[in-house]
Amino acid sequence: MTVLGIDRAGVIGLGLIGGSLARELHAAGVEVLGWDADAASLSAAEADGVVRALTPDLSALASAQLVVVAVPVTAAPALLARLAPVLAADCVVMDVGSTKRSIARAAVRAGIADRFVGSHPMAGDHRAGWAASHTGLFRGATVHLCPTEQTLPAALARVRALWTALAAATQVGGAAEHDRLVAWSSHLPQLLSSALAGVLANAGVPASTLGPGGRDVTRLAASEPTMWTAIVTDNADEIGVALEALELRVREIKEAVAAGDAGVLRELLETARSWRA
Amino acid sequence: MTVLGIDRAGVIGLGLIGGSLARELHAAGVEVLGWDADAASLSAAEADGVVRALTPDLSALASAQLVVVAVPVTAAPALLARLAPVLAADCVVMDVGSTKRSIARAAVRAGIADRFVGSHPMAGDHRAGWAASHTGLFRGATVHLCPTEQTLPAALARVRALWTALAAATQVGGAAEHDRLVAWSSHLPQLLSSALAGVLANAGVPASTLGPGGRDVTRLAASEPTMWTAIVTDNADEIGVALEALELRVREIKEAVAAGDAGVLRELLETARSWRA
Repeated sequence: MTVLGIDRAGVIGLGLIGGSLARELHAAGVEVLGWDADAASLSAAEADGVVRALTPDLSALASAQLVVVAVPVTAAPALLARLAPVLAADCVVMDVGSTKRSIARAAVRAGIADRFVGSHPMAGDHRAGWAASHTGLFRGATVHLCPTEQTLPAALARVRALWTALAAATQVGGAAEHDRLVAWSSHLPQLLSSALAGVLANAGVPASTLGPGGRDVTRLAASEPTMWTAIVTDNADEIGVALEALELRVREIKEAVAAGDAGVLRELLETARSWRA
Repeated sequence: MTVLGIDRAGVIGLGLIGGSLARELHAAGVEVLGWDADAASLSAAEADGVVRALTPDLSALASAQLVVVAVPVTAAPALLARLAPVLAADCVVMDVGSTKRSIARAAVRAGIADRFVGSHPMAGDHRAGWAASHTGLFRGATVHLCPTEQTLPAALARVRALWTALAAATQVGGAAEHDRLVAWSSHLPQLLSSALAGVLANAGVPASTLGPGGRDVTRLAASEPTMWTAIVTDNADEIGVALEALELRVREIKEAVAAGDAGVLRELLETARSWRA
């Protein structure tokens, strides 16, 4: 038995998060069975000696003690349905997606809610894919854990032990509360960064003219569109509320600028600074 | 004569930019006469041995070969009017503000347009004040130079040589063109970062819940409100156009999210990524 309490794990999706988890599991002596829809990523992960490739029927996962689902959040529910008949009764299933309600419902539908633990490591990056993955990514990161109502204590404990071994800080909470929080703290910043980049692109302002501040604000705009389209679609209700608030704030600022109202502008800037500083 | 071609310089305003320039001038052997409206900053700069404090009449600047104006952009015009009667005929005056039209007009009004060179180092930071200033700040930065129509070639050459000696890359252009560009590339990112921070503050989302991406997008929100209120007020016409475009973009995204239109969302994300990546 390895230090992680498991000998064999599956990782489906070998992007930044899945790939980094595969590397950590491999480094800890766990045999990693991997899969990625992108053949080049799968080959690279095999060539790096980190994973052994699964066959499309995923049958080798029957002997896995942990399966990590690291595909775009809108693809994850169908994957759970495919996994359910293959897995052993004591295999724990964990996802790593940025939304937690839809995957929890899918785990219930697939009949594996007792063995399922939703997880969301706050360790994203604008870089994506196997090439961006690396060990150490989760060190110091916060990981939201969202067990279902049926999740067994032992399943939650196994997932928690894994993240703790990777030096991440776990927080357990409900899926609805999670999705509301990240709509504001993660999804809104992503969309805003992309909105700004799109506006600058349309205005003919080259990215090379940005100073350090502009580069920071637009960094997330380089994020992977497929993954983010899935997240935004999946968490649309909560993100809609956040976008409405942002649109209102931008309009307030626009009106204060047009009116030359230094008092209102200063207050807007002070509020923001107090919160962030 | 020092390597910078000057022996004595004045620096009015000892914040991040003015303070860092004072440190560079001092390090190069130039005698620096300094002033700051904040007595504590001025004392600290004196105690650090970087500047000798000016008296309020600024009379000691009569022997300076270069005066750097590093106060908030809305305070700079009045300062130029105060400086004009004090300075020697061959003293070059340079500002470092984020807007360039109003200061150029003020230089003309003060009768020193021939000796004035507007400059804007793209080296800002959310940290402010003398305590944040340091040598090396301008290394690799782009510095926009905006001479007036009357600026003498020798004045422009002196300012250019200074920035080049500090390893910055200078770009010469018109003030109107400059103010339009930075409204998009610098002022809009600042306001957006503050807008997002304000929205998150109102929503009760603590800054501690941000991941690496959210932290980047909101970093500028910690910037100095006095300086930014002045910039935004001074460049209101150009910033208004940029804010209008951003508001429109946020509304487009909001509507695509509400409609669950993955195609439109993906295109928005792709456009942003192509521009930034």
